[in-house]
Amino acid sequence: MSEMKSLALFTDLYELTMAASYFENQMFEPATFSLFIRNYPAFRRYFVSAGLDDVLNYLSGLRFNPEDLDYLEGTKLFKPEFLSYLERFRFTGKVHAIPEGRLFFVNEPLLEVTAPLIEAQVVETFIINAMNLQVMIATKASRCFHAAWPRTLVDFSLRRTQGLDAGMKVARASFIGGFTGTSNVLAGKVYGIPTYGTMAHSFVTSFENETDAFRAFAKTFPENAVLLVDTYDTISGAKAAAEVGKEMASQGKLLKGVRLDSGDIARLSQKVRKILSEKGLGEATVFASGGFDEYTIQRVLKQGGDIDSFGVGTKMGVSADAPYFDMAYKMVEYDGRSVLKLSPQKSTLASAKQVFRFKTPKERLSRDVIGLRDDHLKAGEPLLEEVMREGKVVISTPPLSQIQKRFLVEFSNLREKYKSLAKNVPEYPVGLSSGLKKLQAQLVRRLKARVRKELGES
Amino acid sequence: MSEMKSLALFTDLYELTMAASYFENQMFEPATFSLFIRNYPAFRRYFVSAGLDDVLNYLSGLRFNPEDLDYLEGTKLFKPEFLSYLERFRFTGKVHAIPEGRLFFVNEPLLEVTAPLIEAQVVETFIINAMNLQVMIATKASRCFHAAWPRTLVDFSLRRTQGLDAGMKVARASFIGGFTGTSNVLAGKVYGIPTYGTMAHSFVTSFENETDAFRAFAKTFPENAVLLVDTYDTISGAKAAAEVGKEMASQGKLLKGVRLDSGDIARLSQKVRKILSEKGLGEATVFASGGFDEYTIQRVLKQGGDIDSFGVGTKMGVSADAPYFDMAYKMVEYDGRSVLKLSPQKSTLASAKQVFRFKTPKERLSRDVIGLRDDHLKAGEPLLEEVMREGKVVISTPPLSQIQKRFLVEFSNLREKYKSLAKNVPEYPVGLSSGLKKLQAQLVRRLKARVRKELGES
Repeated sequence: MSEMKSLALFTDLYELTMAASYFENQMFEPATFSLFIRNYPAFRRYFVSAGLDDVLNYLSGLRFNPEDLDYLEGTKLFKPEFLSYLERFRFTGKVHAIPEGRLFFVNEPLLEVTAPLIEAQVVETFIINAMNLQVMIATKASRCFHAAWPRTLVDFSLRRTQGLDAGMKVARASFIGGFTGTSNVLAGKVYGIPTYGTMAHSFVTSFENETDAFRAFAKTFPENAVLLVDTYDTISGAKAAAEVGKEMASQGKLLKGVRLDSGDIARLSQKVRKILSEKGLGEATVFASGGFDEYTIQRVLKQGGDIDSFGVGTKMGVSADAPYFDMAYKMVEYDGRSVLKLSPQKSTLASAKQVFRFKTPKERLSRDVIGLRDDHLKAGEPLLEEVMREGKVVISTPPLSQIQKRFLVEFSNLREKYKSLAKNVPEYPVGLSSGLKKLQAQLVRRLKARVRKELGES
Repeated sequence: MSEMKSLALFTDLYELTMAASYFENQMFEPATFSLFIRNYPAFRRYFVSAGLDDVLNYLSGLRFNPEDLDYLEGTKLFKPEFLSYLERFRFTGKVHAIPEGRLFFVNEPLLEVTAPLIEAQVVETFIINAMNLQVMIATKASRCFHAAWPRTLVDFSLRRTQGLDAGMKVARASFIGGFTGTSNVLAGKVYGIPTYGTMAHSFVTSFENETDAFRAFAKTFPENAVLLVDTYDTISGAKAAAEVGKEMASQGKLLKGVRLDSGDIARLSQKVRKILSEKGLGEATVFASGGFDEYTIQRVLKQGGDIDSFGVGTKMGVSADAPYFDMAYKMVEYDGRSVLKLSPQKSTLASAKQVFRFKTPKERLSRDVIGLRDDHLKAGEPLLEEVMREGKVVISTPPLSQIQKRFLVEFSNLREKYKSLAKNVPEYPVGLSSGLKKLQAQLVRRLKARVRKELGES
């Protein structure tokens, strides 16, 4: 990842060609761009905010270094004056955003950037890249969390996340969405997330037989032995594990648990629990892994699976049933003028905005209203906070555990019907303020009239 | 991405706990692990090799730095002797692999690592992470390439790839799979891939009207003006673009093209082509983007879409219809003993292996045979090459353009029926050599007998 030391070129070429044209036309007036999700992907009815911390780090550190400028010069697309401008480039704008760990809904601006046009434009690619992934994963994780509750969940996805950076972001975002820990050691180091893991099948096959493998592991990790029992046959594996557990008990040690990774997990977990209990190992954890997501967790539990904890891997780590969200970053204001886009299925809400959340007296979420930034809606809690001003971060990112707690509290106040894994889940009510409605209608009218005129004229 | 300066901790915790137990048991004998894909995901019937270069860089540079060791010490899981071992840790093994850009099939080892047990084990997470993503993307890209041929394709996925590293790897892997370029400027710099891009909708909305926006862009980029025509209405946009194209022509400049990004692309592309032709702009490229993948490319072309080039984004960049492959890295030999795993649906082929490819006299691929590493199958081309010996890379990675060429040649020799996008595509014939069959049958027999015995005894 040495190529990542400067992220200024982590951008679509069109951001830079547009910037060059803005520069040539001396268009430096402030613009506001809004980041939002256009549609609910596969059966989801809410989103969990995550990724803001990366965006703030990126914006504060954004520089074009000499190598970047050499490369751009070599493309022969850009004039020297524009390259000099990039050499001095800093992000000097302001950012409003919904804090990490909060819930939000379709069309609600999750983040708004206001800055001189070029600055607000060239950061688009990075912002979508960072936020789309982390919102998607925190949301997916929260669905698994909901299905498994009160059982615990560990992120096992590292080997099949889409690349290295995803491996890190998935560990962090799934923790925000309610997971207890991760198998990713680097995420443990960088983010302080608790790490979990003991053995793979290869550990078992590298010994002459299963019992030898279990004994060797228990010797090295007498406090942390979760034995994987399905390498050859789950039942015989569980019996071998129980045998070793008894040996440990006779030495005053406690078998921490066993892990099931294949087969009919609901049925096998019951049998394995019985095998353990019969040997007096009732406190050993039954850990299940292998292809789990919210749907399979729900199914295995409905079938009576006797499981304490799930390792949730690939399907969560790539958000397999919705591996991208329709997240967009669109210009909504330029030079004091509200703007919008009319493309089919891709129209936008104009102007700088605020989201207001209304709750019941018991703190349950009842509805949101998307309004203009300067709207004051009595009793509505404004969700977007100013997080950056003149290119400087003006909040301090809370510890990850606090972000998780923020999620847990708000999620517990979202009605069950919006968390369902079913196919026909109602939408949480999100309205527009009267001010925004009026502005939007005016602008659409004006634009349609212009299009009609242009089509008529030619 | 500063956290990425050492990748030694980019691993599942269990790799390190297993290593600690191997260390305590002085298990340093050589092991062989095999990387392969267990099943064909959604409608695919072949895979494209990609990612080897990253694996070789990782293995050659693998070190636990002092910060890594401090962190591991702090977990209190590991003994000082093991941490000292990690401090001196180097990868000293050998690697055989199928070169990048070649085709391979289900169950075929794509890469095999032979090294002292701990070394071969702890590299698992990184190897799967790097190879799974890049094989998946090169394969997806090749399907788009096949559907669009002879039209050209550009990777537009950067904003919605799953993280930063994926953004880079997708640009590289999609180029291997037949793409012409990418919008990712950093990939242009790092890998030398041609970059493409001109303007977004926000460019158009930041001007008072579309024609002003087009004129401004054409002034800055008279050689590189691809005008985006669907911000308000595709037909009126195309008329404005044609107007500006005529102005350019009168100044001796050529409008490079227009881009359509929404609506009924097949129908609109025909209308837009007509508008351009009527203004004498027959040479302008019609570029289409917006939600394309192999299926929608095929559909739009069947509907008569008059398109020269496609921007292919999100659905390719996350391999949306198959966002992970069932790629596994399994121990197949330890201390001279062939090993395998019997878990349901997850059994493995034992021993170090080679893949032999048989072709027709006209170079068409006819069948593959998976054999033992030392098998000699007359007329079969062995696919795995020794790429690393004693921890040193012993090949030089060819330029990316040459890897792409290797793919294009072999892909042209794969019969059409295996490339189809239909649902019932036949499988390419892959057999086992008689030596491997015999060994496999022996081992399965022996293991089943042992499981029966253990179940009977207890």
